[in-house]
Amino acid sequence: MKPFDIKVPDTTLLPAIREKINNLNKPKGSLGRLESLAEQICLVQQTLSPSLRHPCHLLMGGDHGIEHENVSVSPREVTWQQMVNFTHGGGGVNMFCRQHHFDLYLVDMGVDHDLQDTPGIIDCKIARGTRNFLYEAAMSEQQYEEALNAGARLVDKCAATGCNVLCIGEMGIANTSPSSIWMSLWGDIPLDECIGAGAGLNHPGIAHKKEVLNAAVAHFRQQYPHADTHTIIRYFGGFEMVGAIGAMLRAAESRMLVLVDGFIMTACMLAASHLCPEVLHYAIFGHCGDESGHGRMLSLMNARPLLHLGMRLGEGTGALCAYPIIESAVRMINEMNNFEHAKITKYF
Amino acid sequence: MKPFDIKVPDTTLLPAIREKINNLNKPKGSLGRLESLAEQICLVQQTLSPSLRHPCHLLMGGDHGIEHENVSVSPREVTWQQMVNFTHGGGGVNMFCRQHHFDLYLVDMGVDHDLQDTPGIIDCKIARGTRNFLYEAAMSEQQYEEALNAGARLVDKCAATGCNVLCIGEMGIANTSPSSIWMSLWGDIPLDECIGAGAGLNHPGIAHKKEVLNAAVAHFRQQYPHADTHTIIRYFGGFEMVGAIGAMLRAAESRMLVLVDGFIMTACMLAASHLCPEVLHYAIFGHCGDESGHGRMLSLMNARPLLHLGMRLGEGTGALCAYPIIESAVRMINEMNNFEHAKITKYF
Repeated sequence: MKPFDIKVPDTTLLPAIREKINNLNKPKGSLGRLESLAEQICLVQQTLSPSLRHPCHLLMGGDHGIEHENVSVSPREVTWQQMVNFTHGGGGVNMFCRQHHFDLYLVDMGVDHDLQDTPGIIDCKIARGTRNFLYEAAMSEQQYEEALNAGARLVDKCAATGCNVLCIGEMGIANTSPSSIWMSLWGDIPLDECIGAGAGLNHPGIAHKKEVLNAAVAHFRQQYPHADTHTIIRYFGGFEMVGAIGAMLRAAESRMLVLVDGFIMTACMLAASHLCPEVLHYAIFGHCGDESGHGRMLSLMNARPLLHLGMRLGEGTGALCAYPIIESAVRMINEMNNFEHAKITKYF
Repeated sequence: MKPFDIKVPDTTLLPAIREKINNLNKPKGSLGRLESLAEQICLVQQTLSPSLRHPCHLLMGGDHGIEHENVSVSPREVTWQQMVNFTHGGGGVNMFCRQHHFDLYLVDMGVDHDLQDTPGIIDCKIARGTRNFLYEAAMSEQQYEEALNAGARLVDKCAATGCNVLCIGEMGIANTSPSSIWMSLWGDIPLDECIGAGAGLNHPGIAHKKEVLNAAVAHFRQQYPHADTHTIIRYFGGFEMVGAIGAMLRAAESRMLVLVDGFIMTACMLAASHLCPEVLHYAIFGHCGDESGHGRMLSLMNARPLLHLGMRLGEGTGALCAYPIIESAVRMINEMNNFEHAKITKYF
């Protein structure tokens, strides 16, 4: 596999960016997070006049072998049913893409259903769901590479439309399970503290989920006492998650902004940052949700999400809801007058 | 003065609203704050299919007698300079109004400058600034009524355009001072805990501000040991603040949603709620800023703001930034499929 070549943005422009922001006609720092966002976007785009062009949203779908262990309140069939629903425009992701003018790409990375003949779904299927990581690796090395590359190629497709800001979401029943395990392994946090209700498990359901995932990790550790990042990703990950990681890395390589959604996409960004730490310079974290431990996982990356709205739908909805804030930051640095031009007494 | 007649929204529709939201194709509760927002909007509009029509933003400007006591880092002239700057489109408020398609009304409620000949500013001037409340009431009873009525009439003007969602912001150097005093008096919170840096005071500046405001309140208490709400408002308030209170009350009376901005507008909503508690049913709190005690003032009204972005610019910018979230809530209830229609297994 060709590694991703992600550059840390050059900081030569930083003093000029800060001077521009500090001279806008407002008390210094008074636009809070919009100011730090504008700074990040200027650095990524290496300009004092950034722009957001042709935003795209990748909605990656995939099924999980671990779903057979009853770790989710929703049955597996919901994955394909929702993918089909999205093609009709009636999902959460659809309305927010319409609202914020994102091109939506619905991608079958590994849904356990035949979607080839469903118009509007891009076929990148690696297999009909992963294997059950309670017993074996979710995917082979070859499948892992295929999924990473498929994600990267999708970004190339977006880039060809002129896109410079990418959002990624997922649909995959049971995918909080691998996310919790990744968080535990890379964050060195007891697994039980990383496991939550997912789409709505009750207390006995959560207890069962903890039992299953602990058993899976114990078995994994026996097989791979010194597992590297790649092995951790492919052993537990879903095809939609590995596709998302490939997309994140290629987007950063292509100097795009990457808008990160909730618990699962945060876990994917954590994985991506273990492959290439530089990816974080391109990441904007949209939303901190209610899933147990999401805030803690974000803090592993020193990430400060823009929104806290108690959302836990997935699909990329939390990140999409944060998009107007990013637009506001760009408007601020491009459209707001400075003190001199506005003929206002500069007051400090 | 004719009192405002604000109705508590009828809750007969509530079970139907909740059923509609719970049957949208998502795990129950998984759109978090969007769901409670949608519920509120449906109740205010008495419908299962709400809409946001012709959003308007009132930017109220006014100067304060207390500014002569050096309680603000910015000089008084910044009020009129910014008002003029807003007419040229270069302020924070302008860019967010453009972004979210708000009609912007720039209103001179009591700026200490002759703005009559400035195109784009609506003349509601009560006087060139309030009197200095360190020594006397900021405004007379008559001025107080005039300012309330002026705010109400502006809302009637918005309503005539078909507007059903109103945002209000302010420009008025030194207006954190009356806001802190109102918070202290109605919240029964020691005044020092309600006083912050405003637009950027340093520590000695804050200490001086505390001294001045404590002296003002002590003097006020001597004169009015049993002051009623009206007296508290007119003794300390700015014309732009009283105009905002009148606008909030008339908007609620007219069954509009009222989008509340940062520290100063939160203080005005607190004042409005002391005149008519029913107004809170119509209020959506946009942003909790960094000004000392803002979170505490919000909790006096059990208000949960949508955003926490560290903004403290005023002008209504925090509330405007929250508007897309409100649009998302409305889209959710109008555009999202339900389980039955989307042919998705309902999973709980």
